[in-house]
Amino acid sequence: MSEVVDALRVRIYDTTLRDGTQREGLSLTCEDKLRIADRLDRLGVSWIEAGWPGSNPKDAELFARARDHQLTHAKWAAFGATRRAHVRPEHDPQVEALLEAGTDVVTIFGKSSRLHVTEVLRVTLDENLKMIEQTVALLVKEGRTVVYDAEHFFDGWREDPSYALESLTAARNGGASELVLCDTNGGSLPWDVEAIVGRMVRAFSCPVGIHAHDDGGLAVANSLAAVRAGARHVQGTFNGWGERCGNADLCTIIPDLELKLGARCLPEGKLAELTETARELVELANLTPDPHKPYVGRSAFAHKGGVHVAAVRRSKRSYEHVDPERVGNKSRVVVSELAGQGNVHAHAEQIGLSLEDEEARSVVRAIKADEARGYSFDAAEASVAMRIERARPGYVAPFRVLDYRVIVGRDRDGQPTAEATVKVAIGDQVVHTAGEHQGPVAALDRALRAALEPSLPRVAALRLVDFKVRILDGRLATDAVTRVLVDTSDGDDTWSTVGASSSVVEASLEALVDGIEHGLARHARASVPPQEKVG
Amino acid sequence: MSEVVDALRVRIYDTTLRDGTQREGLSLTCEDKLRIADRLDRLGVSWIEAGWPGSNPKDAELFARARDHQLTHAKWAAFGATRRAHVRPEHDPQVEALLEAGTDVVTIFGKSSRLHVTEVLRVTLDENLKMIEQTVALLVKEGRTVVYDAEHFFDGWREDPSYALESLTAARNGGASELVLCDTNGGSLPWDVEAIVGRMVRAFSCPVGIHAHDDGGLAVANSLAAVRAGARHVQGTFNGWGERCGNADLCTIIPDLELKLGARCLPEGKLAELTETARELVELANLTPDPHKPYVGRSAFAHKGGVHVAAVRRSKRSYEHVDPERVGNKSRVVVSELAGQGNVHAHAEQIGLSLEDEEARSVVRAIKADEARGYSFDAAEASVAMRIERARPGYVAPFRVLDYRVIVGRDRDGQPTAEATVKVAIGDQVVHTAGEHQGPVAALDRALRAALEPSLPRVAALRLVDFKVRILDGRLATDAVTRVLVDTSDGDDTWSTVGASSSVVEASLEALVDGIEHGLARHARASVPPQEKVG
Repeated sequence: MSEVVDALRVRIYDTTLRDGTQREGLSLTCEDKLRIADRLDRLGVSWIEAGWPGSNPKDAELFARARDHQLTHAKWAAFGATRRAHVRPEHDPQVEALLEAGTDVVTIFGKSSRLHVTEVLRVTLDENLKMIEQTVALLVKEGRTVVYDAEHFFDGWREDPSYALESLTAARNGGASELVLCDTNGGSLPWDVEAIVGRMVRAFSCPVGIHAHDDGGLAVANSLAAVRAGARHVQGTFNGWGERCGNADLCTIIPDLELKLGARCLPEGKLAELTETARELVELANLTPDPHKPYVGRSAFAHKGGVHVAAVRRSKRSYEHVDPERVGNKSRVVVSELAGQGNVHAHAEQIGLSLEDEEARSVVRAIKADEARGYSFDAAEASVAMRIERARPGYVAPFRVLDYRVIVGRDRDGQPTAEATVKVAIGDQVVHTAGEHQGPVAALDRALRAALEPSLPRVAALRLVDFKVRILDGRLATDAVTRVLVDTSDGDDTWSTVGASSSVVEASLEALVDGIEHGLARHARASVPPQEKVG
Repeated sequence: MSEVVDALRVRIYDTTLRDGTQREGLSLTCEDKLRIADRLDRLGVSWIEAGWPGSNPKDAELFARARDHQLTHAKWAAFGATRRAHVRPEHDPQVEALLEAGTDVVTIFGKSSRLHVTEVLRVTLDENLKMIEQTVALLVKEGRTVVYDAEHFFDGWREDPSYALESLTAARNGGASELVLCDTNGGSLPWDVEAIVGRMVRAFSCPVGIHAHDDGGLAVANSLAAVRAGARHVQGTFNGWGERCGNADLCTIIPDLELKLGARCLPEGKLAELTETARELVELANLTPDPHKPYVGRSAFAHKGGVHVAAVRRSKRSYEHVDPERVGNKSRVVVSELAGQGNVHAHAEQIGLSLEDEEARSVVRAIKADEARGYSFDAAEASVAMRIERARPGYVAPFRVLDYRVIVGRDRDGQPTAEATVKVAIGDQVVHTAGEHQGPVAALDRALRAALEPSLPRVAALRLVDFKVRILDGRLATDAVTRVLVDTSDGDDTWSTVGASSSVVEASLEALVDGIEHGLARHARASVPPQEKVG
């Protein structure tokens, strides 16, 4: 195996900061971008494409700061276009900005498709080749290492293979060090990619790379196909961010290459940081994580079906394609309608508790009774954890909501408004507080925090980070049960809790209370010396 | 091309209702499942796997209802396991439940992997083969068409190809009509899938199918690879729902097969309904749509980058891998959900109204302003209709809610309770009424009906038949906007309306009001002699 690894070294070119930010709804500050770059550098990617310095002032600022921002493993790359038609590259302000960016590596994209040259760029086929060669040559003369991104290469090849080839030759004549074949529209098939990349690998002596998009749902397969054909440079983005359907997702490609194709992309031991890196980037970008993402998603190794759960306990390998720990993720047993005692024991072990069989049986009974009333614990493992905590002898709840009231209506301007009061027992004290907001749940959350924070200061560190409402069997209309899922975070970890009731306010309160109580309980557990943790 | 199409007919086996519901957080009622089945049947899939009748009472209920629920194109399939070890299949209650389900098609899964037989099932290799053959044989004897799902086939093949082959032979000896090779753990690579499927296609005279999961990000590629190798039956789920990272996404595979591999999966003309079908299922499941999904996502053909937008204007083909209209989606350059006057005119005609251009423009403005505030009209055509009604000169609303208040809390027994009051203008009269119920929305609905029914007796005929709540951008937690969708019915027809607000109660009230007002308006229109209907 180790020879294979040595032979198949694939370098990762990350374009999260440039192509990734083309994703609708994603916008990163300069500071965010530097933090993301640091994280990717620690993980061990080979290049970090920071932006297009000639295209906007934000990217220019980033390059100014990047100059003093040393990376330890990766190289900064600046991205830009070939010179405009009929000007010398040294007179093109966009090319000038690329030089001013001051990176060792510059990536230049140019046209390989006749359609694009004649219909989009509207220059002659010959002028396009000159634009490529002269732009690359100037940058090389100025001491830059040039990566050449051949835009629409596969579409161009299908139109006219000899012109597509000539465009690569022009870049190579200019002195480009790497030739990257781009499936810009994301519509290519892996078998075509493999055949075409193979021909280019044989035609050129320099390394060949791949840049894929996911419009046909095939960006990962196309990237792997290119590596099979000899590509040794893979471009993509973390979490697959990018325009339209996104770029090739490095969070999937890296483990596929390392664990399934025997390649080495990251420094030794770094693959185990993949999940953490992916999630940190989602946090920094302020996006909602996709729990179903291969390898790094929260549900990627979650087992729900009763048959599967039983099998997973008998043989770890039976329903997992790789060991989740290799990518820093973990198996999770989802406690579902088929909840048995075994699931509850497994769950308790995961959170570092152990239960007597009779206690586990009482948790199962409680869960089944709640499920019959509309609760669902699939996505609310912290509510399961709370039921396990509460079943243990000696557990004392840090607080208890005795009563509440919310008044909902409109204010004088016709805007929605809500005022909440709560009565909470904390130890032997009873606190009565109020809160207001536009909606009833937010008002109640405020009143509850006002009651808790003075006596339980740890509550201030717990933030409500997601809130979902589902009406069960909506055909019962307003008689239906409402299920509320809440995500609470202490900054390091996030957990989910559930409430259900025919009142949306009551259901929300239950989920809020479980979320806060779980945050306090796990903090208390973490503060106990290890020898007392078990039992 | 047409010969290719005829040669490459690929039938689609949908398992959204069975394997899809293994997705964490997805839970469908029996009624939801029947509506999804109807939608998929209209689209033209070949089989709809409804569930596992022997595994839980909910699935058994669905099959009882499916018996009288005719599909026009698809066949219902019931899913189940091979008999238990060392019992005759006719004495196995799980097999009995499969027969009781009463479907023409039964899909049986069995083990093809030595590891699973010996470590998970814990029976001898020989007993497993008997379990497969005898279970299939009994079902065939009872007149069923049997699809055989070879679980973990590719993993099994890698462990011991001859045993994997024997397991298929056992199914075939029992009389199975189709052999489906399952990549249950989702870790296989397209090149391996293609090679192995090719061998099985050559080894057996019956059709061979593929069932892929997305744990390596390769479910789509693996399904296409299988078709290249001769598979003519593809299993998957809509929107890729399923356990862990999900099943193979039919929303991507169907257009890849039809538009890129020249296959025919759906009846003529049906591919253009793909986007609408995918979105309708997301609504029914009350999940958040993924805008970046290939083909059917809202952003799948959205152009953000300045360079791209300019190029798209110069040449449609330049940044789109396929024409979005072929899958019923559309290009989007300017951010606008329900673009333009044309749509509004078309909509008005549908409900038998016509608008002046200036009126249509004001409707577009109102809709765009509401969309910016979180409304979505995709699934709420009656709220669009109300905006059209209200834009017509001379339209007088039958009632108007002037104010309301709801008090939410717990009663003396600790049960949730809510009391609502509303002030409603009906003509020149102001009515002030109250209502109570467990939850705030139900209490408000009662108060509103108490106000309306004496003067507008038609309201008594309008029933609220569905109620859905979605939190938009849940990461804003309790500051997030709540969108409420309500279905109202007059017994003959059902229509959907939408409300959005940072207060769930306010959003619900808006949707309730639109739903009732639309019911009154359509009844008024229906009572007008036909010649006055137009204009």
